[in-house]
Amino acid sequence: MAESPVEQLIRQIARLPGLGPRSARRIVLYLLQRRESVFQPLVAALRDVESNVRRCGTCRNWDVTDPCNVCSDMRRDQSVICVVEGVADLWALERSGAYRGQYHVLGGALSALEGTRPEDLGIAQLLTRAATPAITEIVLAMGATVDGQTTAHYLADSLAHCEITISRLAHGVPVGGQLDYLDDGTLTAALRSRRPF
Amino acid sequence: MAESPVEQLIRQIARLPGLGPRSARRIVLYLLQRRESVFQPLVAALRDVESNVRRCGTCRNWDVTDPCNVCSDMRRDQSVICVVEGVADLWALERSGAYRGQYHVLGGALSALEGTRPEDLGIAQLLTRAATPAITEIVLAMGATVDGQTTAHYLADSLAHCEITISRLAHGVPVGGQLDYLDDGTLTAALRSRRPF
Repeated sequence: MAESPVEQLIRQIARLPGLGPRSARRIVLYLLQRRESVFQPLVAALRDVESNVRRCGTCRNWDVTDPCNVCSDMRRDQSVICVVEGVADLWALERSGAYRGQYHVLGGALSALEGTRPEDLGIAQLLTRAATPAITEIVLAMGATVDGQTTAHYLADSLAHCEITISRLAHGVPVGGQLDYLDDGTLTAALRSRRPF
Repeated sequence: MAESPVEQLIRQIARLPGLGPRSARRIVLYLLQRRESVFQPLVAALRDVESNVRRCGTCRNWDVTDPCNVCSDMRRDQSVICVVEGVADLWALERSGAYRGQYHVLGGALSALEGTRPEDLGIAQLLTRAATPAITEIVLAMGATVDGQTTAHYLADSLAHCEITISRLAHGVPVGGQLDYLDDGTLTAALRSRRPF
């Protein structure tokens, strides 16, 4: 028997990250019972994003405009670029409200295991941007993982010939973190980077 | 600043059952990175269901046709109606493949706490269906919860004047269940309903 539209929808929702057949069925029933308050607005929002959101040609962020609202915001610092692995990291930094410069989204990290090479990431674009005279600092905001730090070292080497400051995020005790729950690597990093009180 | 389409979509996905802002952001990035393989088919499937799936006028199942494919399947037993609380229960029974009769979806269970009264459920429709001569048995397939069993007793009373068999699902040890992990209520029910080996 052919798959019904409801079964098709459940199968497609079940493919999304973090979801499975059970949660997909629950979501579909939830949507069917709330057709006007939830289902129709959701379909409209999905169509809007699907047809209008594109990658920013400058920083590779997702937005409806190109350049994106971060790149085109002239109130932001035009002299600093914060390099992140993915758009999720850009969103996290924006939510913190602690950064008001430019971004560059690599689209991943170098990985021998996954076979991600420098040419697979937006590194050439970053080097071009770094070479413009307006840029004075590049912040490497990779994750504190093996792949993230490999990528950071690769970028630091690639950018070494530019006469700009290259910095990275501090490693240390996360705010709210209790010492006896932290791993040795974090404690070692926090102790090595200790600062005058 | 006005909410961007991406932020709107994240907020709407985060309202779905079992999801939150973090999983919604992950899903949106996943969709944007797989525009043709996942995003477009998902939007098409959602639109299809949103505009074509309706409640079956007979059993209150969701389907593109009315009567639904269960009610209109003449190879199924037309003399038995299995009464379930929701469409999720109907789907679970269909997946088991153990039942080949008709269904009736109540749309909930009687609940003093939630204020669900008999007139809020599809009970009048069920009584009308039970009164047709073709029907010989009604299976009460409510959950083994307080509300489910209250509903089952209420239905058994309402159907008592009809000259048809009224049955309920067996309670007992679930297949694969180990005795020392089962609650007292299940064990008591399994012992009371013990059968010759």
